[in-house]
Amino acid sequence: MMFSSDDHRYMARALELAALGQYSTKPNPCVGCVIVKKGDIVGEGWHEKAGEPHAEVHALKKAGVNASGATVYVTLEPCSHHGKTPPCAEALIEAGVNHVIIAMQDPNPLVAGMGMSKLREAGVTVSCGLLKNQAQALNKSFCHKMMTGKPYMTSKVAMSLDGRTAMASGESQWITGFKARQDVHRLRAQSDIVLTGVGTVLADNPKLTAREGLGGLSVTQPRIVILDSTLKTPLDAAVFKEGSEVTILTCSHDEPAVLALKKAGCGVVIVDANEKGQVDLHAVETWLAMQALNSVMIEAGALLNGAFMQMGMIDELIIYMAPSVLGTEARGAFSMPTVSTLSDRVQLKYVGMEQLDEDVKLTYDVKKED
Amino acid sequence: MMFSSDDHRYMARALELAALGQYSTKPNPCVGCVIVKKGDIVGEGWHEKAGEPHAEVHALKKAGVNASGATVYVTLEPCSHHGKTPPCAEALIEAGVNHVIIAMQDPNPLVAGMGMSKLREAGVTVSCGLLKNQAQALNKSFCHKMMTGKPYMTSKVAMSLDGRTAMASGESQWITGFKARQDVHRLRAQSDIVLTGVGTVLADNPKLTAREGLGGLSVTQPRIVILDSTLKTPLDAAVFKEGSEVTILTCSHDEPAVLALKKAGCGVVIVDANEKGQVDLHAVETWLAMQALNSVMIEAGALLNGAFMQMGMIDELIIYMAPSVLGTEARGAFSMPTVSTLSDRVQLKYVGMEQLDEDVKLTYDVKKED
Repeated sequence: MMFSSDDHRYMARALELAALGQYSTKPNPCVGCVIVKKGDIVGEGWHEKAGEPHAEVHALKKAGVNASGATVYVTLEPCSHHGKTPPCAEALIEAGVNHVIIAMQDPNPLVAGMGMSKLREAGVTVSCGLLKNQAQALNKSFCHKMMTGKPYMTSKVAMSLDGRTAMASGESQWITGFKARQDVHRLRAQSDIVLTGVGTVLADNPKLTAREGLGGLSVTQPRIVILDSTLKTPLDAAVFKEGSEVTILTCSHDEPAVLALKKAGCGVVIVDANEKGQVDLHAVETWLAMQALNSVMIEAGALLNGAFMQMGMIDELIIYMAPSVLGTEARGAFSMPTVSTLSDRVQLKYVGMEQLDEDVKLTYDVKKED
Repeated sequence: MMFSSDDHRYMARALELAALGQYSTKPNPCVGCVIVKKGDIVGEGWHEKAGEPHAEVHALKKAGVNASGATVYVTLEPCSHHGKTPPCAEALIEAGVNHVIIAMQDPNPLVAGMGMSKLREAGVTVSCGLLKNQAQALNKSFCHKMMTGKPYMTSKVAMSLDGRTAMASGESQWITGFKARQDVHRLRAQSDIVLTGVGTVLADNPKLTAREGLGGLSVTQPRIVILDSTLKTPLDAAVFKEGSEVTILTCSHDEPAVLALKKAGCGVVIVDANEKGQVDLHAVETWLAMQALNSVMIEAGALLNGAFMQMGMIDELIIYMAPSVLGTEARGAFSMPTVSTLSDRVQLKYVGMEQLDEDVKLTYDVKKED
């Protein structure tokens, strides 16, 4: 069907509302909803937190009796199943809405279209596809997880223009500037998990929380996952001090070390080891896929980043490139010992760039061989 | 004074004409000229080659008697001195033009304003400054040389997104794609000199000529300068086979080797050695400054690029960044052994970017400490 310019305007508003939940709804998608009656917005809402009411419920509550006969703009197909909250399709039907305009269908193939069917069966007019691309972009990781069963893996690298992430000594703070760091914090806030290696914990002792540039929006801090083959993470590491949920994936069976970490409030999961006696990344991938999460942000050193890159486990690479030269003696971003000829290189696809003060943010899709 | 929209249009045309000489006028500046009488363009011209007539002379010839009483748009202040050709200011006066509109004054402080004075003394109206920034950008290197006495030094690096220019084995063709390579050829065509090190000659045996992406414009090939401390450049190197003027800067006094190279048509200049017995880069800088040239493009490996960068001799860095990852085992772009802390890093300034198919071109100004 054709959508009017008013339709576009209301859906754009619904998307704007949806984005207000981008740091807090994890692992749920961001959803916004606008209810319009006779040219007036009578209700608005967005999903703020998993377990709390969905966008439609907030908007219906605001609209009250005005919902009857109204047109509803919602960025994602209303749910039809009983989850933590009752199904929104039923709530819309009960409220007596006349028309539901949806940006995108539910990306979960098991339930896609079911919310729309339920609405249509109850006599509600349903249209779908308005600003679909924008809606998909807003919930890129959620869509990816629903369609592939795996979380969307983003590797973030902050480096000099000659590809160096730290001096030979390990010194690395701060290569990039304030705006780039704010952007990193936004990426963290959008991610279900920030994943790092024990090497980074020992070298930089980062907090790995989202603290800056969040525009006053509600934030659910990402979980932190540390790959730590031999349980070297210190009990007084900064990651433990910010209230974050921390999980260590290890292949060590050192009971006292495990117990000490658990006592410190840290989850410890023992996974398979690879032939070098290190945490096997395939086992990590499997464990991640089993968690209720959509997105993993990798903030790691050259060894872990290189291993993930070589194994084709990274979906997206985001580079923050500072306008400085550190020289070949400094540390690189991806250690890939088995790449020895140009034909072995990992090929990516340029997506876009943004200038952040003096730094440049470059985004790449990692091409997958299917 | 205020310029009209017609003035802008004619000067834009003059700049367009000037740019036709961008690959051929070296070491002269690009200049374009448009002569307008009663709203009609009666003459156009541009400077094509050093030693040949200037833009004004071509345009006056086309205009013939129509030049009398006409308005002349010229992108650079007409010359007032007798060089290889007679002064253009005199030619304009003799032709009886009424008004000369100039984009930018001559950047040479010794002659700046003299052409305008000569015109004004003869009763010609003179205006200056129309599209000045565009005119300066077109002759960036020429302006730099006139104002500093040194050529504008551009380092070009083609690399993977993790800052690698070649595999550990030296394999480097082709990291970047076709459009990026065309752009490199355009950079060469705009440069007076392409400077490299003997290491690059031995490893890659490049031609270092401008052959692609030149849009059918007239091309004067750049001179090639090779820094070769111990005269290891092979007599059958590809640089000798394309008709390019090749000069080797060395600190070797090996007479037979010098003679053999000279016999092969190669210029050999002996310069001072540094404390390591290599060609001293300060001596190279001095030699370059004494040549009749404005721009030097450095296409070299990590050692030479790093040395130039550390010594603050590079004005501009142009990176062609391919969407690939080669890993830390591959070769880097700038060897800078004395940079060991972040505070020692070389700081640049981001200027702009361009997408060239799958590659990204990034341009940086190198900040100079004055």
